Amino acid sequence: MKISILGSTGSIGTQTLDIVREHSDLFSIEGITTNKNVDLLVEQIEEFKPKKVAIFDRYKYEYFLSILESKRKNDVYRSVYDNLEVYYGMDGLINIASSKTIDILVTAVVGMIGLKPTLEAIKKSTTIALANKETLVTAGKIVMEEAKKHNAKIIPVDSEHSAIFQCITGERDNRIDKILLTASGGPFRGKTKSELENVTKNDALKHPNWTMGQKITIDSSTLMNKGLEVIEARWLFDVSPSDIVVHVHPQSIVHSMVQFEDSSIIAQLGCPDMRVPIQYALTYPSRIPSNFEKLDLFSIANLSFEKPDLDVFPCLKLAYDALENGGTDCTVLNAANEVLVSKFLNDEIGFYDIPKYIELAIRKHNYIENPTLEDILYTDEWTRRFIEDYLK
Amino acid sequence: MKISILGSTGSIGTQTLDIVREHSDLFSIEGITTNKNVDLLVEQIEEFKPKKVAIFDRYKYEYFLSILESKRKNDVYRSVYDNLEVYYGMDGLINIASSKTIDILVTAVVGMIGLKPTLEAIKKSTTIALANKETLVTAGKIVMEEAKKHNAKIIPVDSEHSAIFQCITGERDNRIDKILLTASGGPFRGKTKSELENVTKNDALKHPNWTMGQKITIDSSTLMNKGLEVIEARWLFDVSPSDIVVHVHPQSIVHSMVQFEDSSIIAQLGCPDMRVPIQYALTYPSRIPSNFEKLDLFSIANLSFEKPDLDVFPCLKLAYDALENGGTDCTVLNAANEVLVSKFLNDEIGFYDIPKYIELAIRKHNYIENPTLEDILYTDEWTRRFIEDYLK
Repeated sequence: MKISILGSTGSIGTQTLDIVREHSDLFSIEGITTNKNVDLLVEQIEEFKPKKVAIFDRYKYEYFLSILESKRKNDVYRSVYDNLEVYYGMDGLINIASSKTIDILVTAVVGMIGLKPTLEAIKKSTTIALANKETLVTAGKIVMEEAKKHNAKIIPVDSEHSAIFQCITGERDNRIDKILLTASGGPFRGKTKSELENVTKNDALKHPNWTMGQKITIDSSTLMNKGLEVIEARWLFDVSPSDIVVHVHPQSIVHSMVQFEDSSIIAQLGCPDMRVPIQYALTYPSRIPSNFEKLDLFSIANLSFEKPDLDVFPCLKLAYDALENGGTDCTVLNAANEVLVSKFLNDEIGFYDIPKYIELAIRKHNYIENPTLEDILYTDEWTRRFIEDYLK
Repeated sequence: MKISILGSTGSIGTQTLDIVREHSDLFSIEGITTNKNVDLLVEQIEEFKPKKVAIFDRYKYEYFLSILESKRKNDVYRSVYDNLEVYYGMDGLINIASSKTIDILVTAVVGMIGLKPTLEAIKKSTTIALANKETLVTAGKIVMEEAKKHNAKIIPVDSEHSAIFQCITGERDNRIDKILLTASGGPFRGKTKSELENVTKNDALKHPNWTMGQKITIDSSTLMNKGLEVIEARWLFDVSPSDIVVHVHPQSIVHSMVQFEDSSIIAQLGCPDMRVPIQYALTYPSRIPSNFEKLDLFSIANLSFEKPDLDVFPCLKLAYDALENGGTDCTVLNAANEVLVSKFLNDEIGFYDIPKYIELAIRKHNYIENPTLEDILYTDEWTRRFIEDYLK
């Protein structure tokens, strides 16, 4: 099975490579990409010997070229680097993604930049192991239509969506009645609005259960992550927003559930370990033995469930509203959130400025009911500029 | 879909008819049977208009014949009863079960008497909705071999086994790593051995979550019910006894779980309502809309799991041991338990006499490693006589 990974140096990317390393009899690496982490990319090249790499950042690409030059002069490394194809920027990502020789593309980049390469891979009917949720958040309708048209399988990697996917695998045409989407509640579960007014990035980065990248960890603290997942679930599983019910479940053991029309619920459980859904996406519909920690429910003892507080976590409500309004609302929600989380991580804005300016951007933008891909890309760009200008 | 029900007047039987009534467009009743409840059988005949009935008890059969005679003289009922075929005893049950014109046989009788008719239906390649767990407990190996030979589907109706069945439906050849079999713990969960020494049938009949027949309710109080289910699961799903782990889960919401080799766990949940697994067995692999209560996890709030106390509930340990020893041990366990539960319900013996005399019977019986059906029927008969004689 030949795999390429967009974003191999991030959290999901490195865990995907852990699985490839563990099962080198089953998987090989065709292409990998990074934004800026060239040093780790070099390590990965030497271990996994891909045919192609891409570096998104132009400056880091130049830096990589200098490394490449010296490696090619070194007898030890020459064979690894001599035939390596090296690309940069969005075109580089697209080149890696749209290779016809790969079986699965793992889209593990963070943010909007995953959209175009993912669409190109779909056009080649390549199976997508989708970890880049923004792709579906910003352009879910278009992406799913293209996947259907080109008969490309989209297998979710997010633990919640992988759970849902696993729950419905045997259900053929049985209609989903409700999706019970679980949420850890993040580091601020149970806090009041006033307690959260002045929290810092350091408070927000302390996720109780999952170790993840910075952007998604902040999204978990605002519950925007869950909002994005509601939107993602709507497109992946063709379920109306009101039938996707968020259940705050602090133990992060039940990764999500599906209720069917006969009132039976199927759930997927396990220790919080992203390697489980990543591996499932690579081996689906088979499962392969793993050394991942097995769940011991006796030691957990209790699984609890509660409603999310939409007043304390307005980002979740904004996501539901954007999904209900449709059109370009989710594109603005996603773009504004990306910029604002980045500003929060730079200590430029406060915790509640994130929902505040998302709402403002949605209100101010030029709503398009049935946007084309160009409309979406333009709306995304407009939103980023609007936030930057507004907060200058 | 033509259905016959062995034991239509019991708890599972009447609930099966509730579903048939609700979906009369999908299901019709071909044959029904009772042990002694002729009055209810008459009601069911007039509502569901089966072609055949059987009464197991000879005396009650005679009583039914007298009713039949007067009904046939009555213009209102003549059309219902005129062509009704009426049978009695084991041959009657076998006649109902082995009709070639039925699509599904629901085996809802209690105890050993289900074995022969079930085997006859299997020989006709009829799909079995199996609610009579003693069939698999006493002769699991033979029953499953026959089912394989005649390509007869066996769909479990027990809530736990239905849960497991639902969890593996999409898993194709993926190996089961462990079955996490849940147990409510019954009315005596958390009690000590000395507190249970002198409990009566009235204490034992107070099941916290499920309304069921008397025999199974007593079995729940001793945890023998869970022991029988461990044995049943071993045969239904071809899993070794040590990989079937009982989880006491007092809320009875998670009906059981399956862990796979990649450490992912699939679970089935819902309100405790036997109509859900019964309906699933009738509609599998489809699900149909129902008005059964939907689970509200927000109101449940907590799901808890604990280890069973094998010292307080020795019946569960006896079941595991019998399963490990194989041969005729499970047949003796089951037969002795049936007789002893009946004696406990008649206030003839105490709560801990049940495991005490089961153990004795297993120890005293003539162990056969690879019993034939005749060996099993003889061992069953021997056990019942042994207990009766011993306690005379």
